[in-house]
Amino acid sequence: MKFTIATIPGDGIGPEVIQETIKVLETMAAIGGHTFSYPLLLAGGAALDATGHPLPEETLQTAQEADAVLLGAVGGPKWDHLEGEYRPERALLGLRKSLGLFANLRPAVLFQPLKDACPLHPATAAKGIDIMVVRELTGGLYFGKQERLQDETGGWYAYDTMQYHESEIRRIARVALELAKGRSGKVTSVDKANILESSRLWRKTVMEEAAAYPTISLDHMYVDNASMQLVKSPGQFDVILTENMFGDILSDEAGMITGSIGMLPSASLREDQGGMYEPVHGSAPDIAGQNKANPLATILSAAMMLRISFGLEAEAMLMESAVEHVLNQGLRTGDIYSDGCQLTGTREMGAAVVAAV
Amino acid sequence: MKFTIATIPGDGIGPEVIQETIKVLETMAAIGGHTFSYPLLLAGGAALDATGHPLPEETLQTAQEADAVLLGAVGGPKWDHLEGEYRPERALLGLRKSLGLFANLRPAVLFQPLKDACPLHPATAAKGIDIMVVRELTGGLYFGKQERLQDETGGWYAYDTMQYHESEIRRIARVALELAKGRSGKVTSVDKANILESSRLWRKTVMEEAAAYPTISLDHMYVDNASMQLVKSPGQFDVILTENMFGDILSDEAGMITGSIGMLPSASLREDQGGMYEPVHGSAPDIAGQNKANPLATILSAAMMLRISFGLEAEAMLMESAVEHVLNQGLRTGDIYSDGCQLTGTREMGAAVVAAV
Ligand SMILES: CC(C)[C@H](C(=O)O)[C@@H](O)C(=O)O
Ligand SMILES: CC(C)[C@H](C(=O)O)[C@@H](O)C(=O)O
Repeated sequence: MKFTIATIPGDGIGPEVIQETIKVLETMAAIGGHTFSYPLLLAGGAALDATGHPLPEETLQTAQEADAVLLGAVGGPKWDHLEGEYRPERALLGLRKSLGLFANLRPAVLFQPLKDACPLHPATAAKGIDIMVVRELTGGLYFGKQERLQDETGGWYAYDTMQYHESEIRRIARVALELAKGRSGKVTSVDKANILESSRLWRKTVMEEAAAYPTISLDHMYVDNASMQLVKSPGQFDVILTENMFGDILSDEAGMITGSIGMLPSASLREDQGGMYEPVHGSAPDIAGQNKANPLATILSAAMMLRISFGLEAEAMLMESAVEHVLNQGLRTGDIYSDGCQLTGTREMGAAVVAAV
Repeated sequence: MKFTIATIPGDGIGPEVIQETIKVLETMAAIGGHTFSYPLLLAGGAALDATGHPLPEETLQTAQEADAVLLGAVGGPKWDHLEGEYRPERALLGLRKSLGLFANLRPAVLFQPLKDACPLHPATAAKGIDIMVVRELTGGLYFGKQERLQDETGGWYAYDTMQYHESEIRRIARVALELAKGRSGKVTSVDKANILESSRLWRKTVMEEAAAYPTISLDHMYVDNASMQLVKSPGQFDVILTENMFGDILSDEAGMITGSIGMLPSASLREDQGGMYEPVHGSAPDIAGQNKANPLATILSAAMMLRISFGLEAEAMLMESAVEHVLNQGLRTGDIYSDGCQLTGTREMGAAVVAAV
């Protein structure tokens, strides 16, 4: 099969981790008899430097037409002083909104070979963590009306709007419910329905959608409690379903409790098969260009791409096993290094995954 | 000195923990030659049962006129089906808004005798946790305009508004900056300024206020990162300053990482010396009336009341040392019990604190 992967290396360590991921993808293409093409596109700081805008029209156009988008990382201190539409992260927001990427999937998995890096109590780490956070990505405070205004006496005030339409809630709820079918069958919907009107609509609508999934057990949790429970007993969670802002906070917390944040992939999906895939970690400008970055999160993101956007389940599983294999071999980039393991560079890690598949 | 303490026992374990706290307060009154009076008021479920409304006018009136308010806990499954203004937590929101309690102080302290209960890695617990979360309590999404509406085709949508005026930001910033003076001198202001207009105004205004505090070091952190850092290295935080919704989430997370959530007090302050004091824990209806509840968080809340609203620093410290003393003695209610300690009832715990002061 033939697939076009709009590839956005981005800033900092982005280009390095993308390079290793392409090597692995090319190996998969050879094994499966597929053809992948990788039109390289600018976004974020790299695009600002080259074109003056973080999300050039050409990038958007090509990303729209591709079968999927693969992104390294965007941003860095060089562009931190920029404001408004010139901020590098605007590229992410622009891609999310223009491509209609309403469903952000963030698996938070504790890789057993890395369990010593878990910041939680070893007794909790031993039980394992395997959570799928499903975050709504194109609504709520991120895209609601916002303004800064002056009152009669010249004092400033500002507001943002957390708005949801029931249709937005329904489609993200269905993503979570469908995912739960292939997992342990439990969805925890997180809201603040004791305070927020949008949360009350959220809860009501999620319950309505869940009625069509009699085998899925649905419960509801307030966001403040969820932030506690993730630390106290993460094992209680399977699929967490939540809105954009709460999902931003909780998916990062869920990632961090695994201790393997440098390992975590993500997928941002639209209503058809398309999607954007990127590691959860940032651009880490301090180690950029030094062959120190961990490419595994990007490789795992590409595996999600094969599974979800291309329907290549076998290839996706092969890539995931290869990553597990190199971890079991004791290979570690600096971010996940611990005593007794073998310190490995970005390129060497990529090569090891290629060898393992 | 004479003080009137508007006392709201509330629901579940509220009455029990308040009763023990009053015993300790009476001991302090005797020692210091003060007179405390405790007009008992209804709020939450107890008020719903007695008057049909969670926050009766009389409660509000007496609370307004008192020198401080002491609250046990409100809510429980009995009233969970109620909606809108009849929900028991509306009593809390009503008290916060009517009394102008804009500054919520939530210390998150790891009590060393309880460090085995810390859900974080023992290496982190050993370093200790001592964070003061300063949460804005009368603005943002909690009190902004909210509505549920129908579009042309009958579909529902709903919104909430996160709004801040610079004057609201200035006064809460000053509370945090003043508190930092008496601590290690560091304030971390948490926002989402890369996305939210209200956060950009927040950040700008906090920086302006901090200019008047040259000895305080101020930094800024995005809320998603803060939720990770609390788990990864809580030792980096001293005072955390944030808006209402983020503060709800982060103060609970900060409390939970100490493992001592049953021990944590809180204060909600207005611009004069007045304030409302309550434990962070809830009404725990499952153990209500069984002499099992932990009264220490309420006793520590009362200590904050003596310090902040009554200016009785020596008495506050004495109460806090007494709590430390009973912990060092090995006395434990069920929620903080561990092997080798002495399981202690609510009343016995109260008596032990009285004996220790
Ligand atoms: C960079 C930022 C705009 C973004 C977000 O808040 O969504 C990031 O934190 C994320 O979670 O992908
Ligand atoms: C009960 C609820 C309304 C309240 C809040 O969200 O503020 C509680 O979670 C708190 O933090 O005091």
